[in-house]
Amino acid sequence: MAETAQILLNLFIMYAGARLMGEVFHRLKQPAVVGELLVGIGLGVVAFPVHSPVYEAIAEIGAIVLLFYVGLEMRASDIFRVGATAARVAVLGVALPLGLGYGVMALLGYTTPVAVFVGTALVATSVGITARVLKDLGVLSATEARVILGAAVIDDVLGMVLLAGVSGLGDGQWWYVLLLVVEAVSFTLFVSLVATRVVRRYGSLLEHLRISNAPLTVAIIVLLGLSALSAFIGLAAIIGAFLAGMMFAETRDRYPLEHQVEPLHDFLVPFFFVVMGTMVDVSLFMRGEILGLALLITTVAILGKLLGGVLGGYSLGRLSATIVGVGMVPRGEVGIIVALLGLRLDLIDSTLYGVVLFTVIVTTLLSPPLLEALFYRRARGMSLEGEGP
Amino acid sequence: MAETAQILLNLFIMYAGARLMGEVFHRLKQPAVVGELLVGIGLGVVAFPVHSPVYEAIAEIGAIVLLFYVGLEMRASDIFRVGATAARVAVLGVALPLGLGYGVMALLGYTTPVAVFVGTALVATSVGITARVLKDLGVLSATEARVILGAAVIDDVLGMVLLAGVSGLGDGQWWYVLLLVVEAVSFTLFVSLVATRVVRRYGSLLEHLRISNAPLTVAIIVLLGLSALSAFIGLAAIIGAFLAGMMFAETRDRYPLEHQVEPLHDFLVPFFFVVMGTMVDVSLFMRGEILGLALLITTVAILGKLLGGVLGGYSLGRLSATIVGVGMVPRGEVGIIVALLGLRLDLIDSTLYGVVLFTVIVTTLLSPPLLEALFYRRARGMSLEGEGP
Repeated sequence: MAETAQILLNLFIMYAGARLMGEVFHRLKQPAVVGELLVGIGLGVVAFPVHSPVYEAIAEIGAIVLLFYVGLEMRASDIFRVGATAARVAVLGVALPLGLGYGVMALLGYTTPVAVFVGTALVATSVGITARVLKDLGVLSATEARVILGAAVIDDVLGMVLLAGVSGLGDGQWWYVLLLVVEAVSFTLFVSLVATRVVRRYGSLLEHLRISNAPLTVAIIVLLGLSALSAFIGLAAIIGAFLAGMMFAETRDRYPLEHQVEPLHDFLVPFFFVVMGTMVDVSLFMRGEILGLALLITTVAILGKLLGGVLGGYSLGRLSATIVGVGMVPRGEVGIIVALLGLRLDLIDSTLYGVVLFTVIVTTLLSPPLLEALFYRRARGMSLEGEGP
Repeated sequence: MAETAQILLNLFIMYAGARLMGEVFHRLKQPAVVGELLVGIGLGVVAFPVHSPVYEAIAEIGAIVLLFYVGLEMRASDIFRVGATAARVAVLGVALPLGLGYGVMALLGYTTPVAVFVGTALVATSVGITARVLKDLGVLSATEARVILGAAVIDDVLGMVLLAGVSGLGDGQWWYVLLLVVEAVSFTLFVSLVATRVVRRYGSLLEHLRISNAPLTVAIIVLLGLSALSAFIGLAAIIGAFLAGMMFAETRDRYPLEHQVEPLHDFLVPFFFVVMGTMVDVSLFMRGEILGLALLITTVAILGKLLGGVLGGYSLGRLSATIVGVGMVPRGEVGIIVALLGLRLDLIDSTLYGVVLFTVIVTTLLSPPLLEALFYRRARGMSLEGEGP
């Protein structure tokens, strides 16, 4: 009983704090998500007891609900139409941070494995942040949003390949890495090509079910199933969630799923960002000895993704390509996982680990306001010049 | 990562199983909630790893969302209009099981403290089950539903008083028990009398907030806050959730909160019933030595609440009063908590603990089909005779 009370109280503090700061940031014309992250950072500083599997699980559910919602706004065909651009953005956005990260570290005199590890940690885009900003701005149907989401899926597959590669460094089990890659690619292609068609053709069968609200119920079953499968394969759970959303986007003329998922979003997603915030270690920002290297690596990380977006998305025009680049900038938990792995393999010391953490924090907090400003500029440009994207 | 995958997989199994069985039970014209409980019982039998704080927390969130939804359908004035009947039902429904349970145990030769404990364990109605059945039948606005919900709130306050009383048995700290009671009563009265009026008068201020979907957001904040507060005071968290729902029922002409809470219900509530099911120990049904006593006590428990409903609700007519009685029959976790307490105080042995558990299980599984059948009968009677309730 007392435990229930404590959990409910903590959820209340997290949710009320997140929403209050969201309101404040909204009025300051800043992205609400930054306010939510700051609440989390604040709770982390006061050692709020949030590092429990309970809150992490609720946060994870929030993350998959967010990406499901985002997926619902896109048909697979919308993504495939920008597929070539998305692929270019993804490949360049992986290659450039990896190459630049490796190069800078090598120039600074670090050994090759260390340099490769740091480069790898800079690769994976954390698309949750960008997805949330795009949703809050109501621009999920914009071309840039489709390119970013498509690129994020490819990016995650590439990141998994790299992660599997560096984990296996020296193991020589290339067949195992290959197997993982084949699994991930087949999963993604199967869901986006086959499953979406099945839903398009047979989605109306849902009307024969008797349980209340059958379309939403079945969508949630698929969401949980694909998220779990995606995580087992080694991809992020949110990739499965996004693909599940994309499947049900095919039924959007028939069922009001978006409207039904919106309350789930409003309830659960803030927990994801608050918990993400609590993982930030602010003491990093006060450690002078890592600050120089941290700023350098962060700059490399930002430039790598930005260039990847600008070069990969050049066909969209300069402003849109910049939006794509900025949208790919946030790094997330995969970077931290790579760094942790390096720490365990004794390739990375606690200073370098701190550097990677610093990069994750700064890229996460920097991207939302920039993205919002760029979208405002695009909207102004469009209304002034009357030209499409 | 692997842990995330496992949690998502377990959630998938629980949710998909619950919904599938719900569909099957629906087609068999049985309450879906019984199907969900059976899924939980099945998972418990195969030792599914569900006894983790993660699933229990999600189940608890499901429970508060359910009672919040139910509360949204009732204004405080709807409850107060049937207040006298609800109070009679609650008082009789507490006094009769307590008295009958005590009497039977005393007649069987048990000592007074043991008999009091068993009687107390038979007191608390678990309103979640009934609320779910009422919701699924779409009869939340019926007089019977309002009486049941009003009685459940009073029942919980009385149950808390008794629980505090028996916990303090021999402690002599009556002032502490008194304090708890005053807290619980003031909380309930404050929310239902004052807070509802505040919401009615100032609810439109929510339109001045800038965050997306402000009414739902504020409602969720209040829901989490009152649930936590209610649990801290010693009442069930779901009582706070119900009162929070009742507060926002005052805004129902203005905001479509019910439609927004429905998806939350569809996603989260099944976890509550599945987890409830996993707590059932089926081996109890195979232990011959407890079966006789268990059936006797279960009969007493059912008769006590049924008589409480029939006598307390006589002014509603016989069928409606029976519906109220059956609606109050399910016992829940409070009964188990009392029995556990008795076990710890060495007043109750494992046989009597098993007897209480048996009673909780049988009353929980028995009530939904009966309730559904009675409501069908009432609907038939109404359409045949054309008379209102």
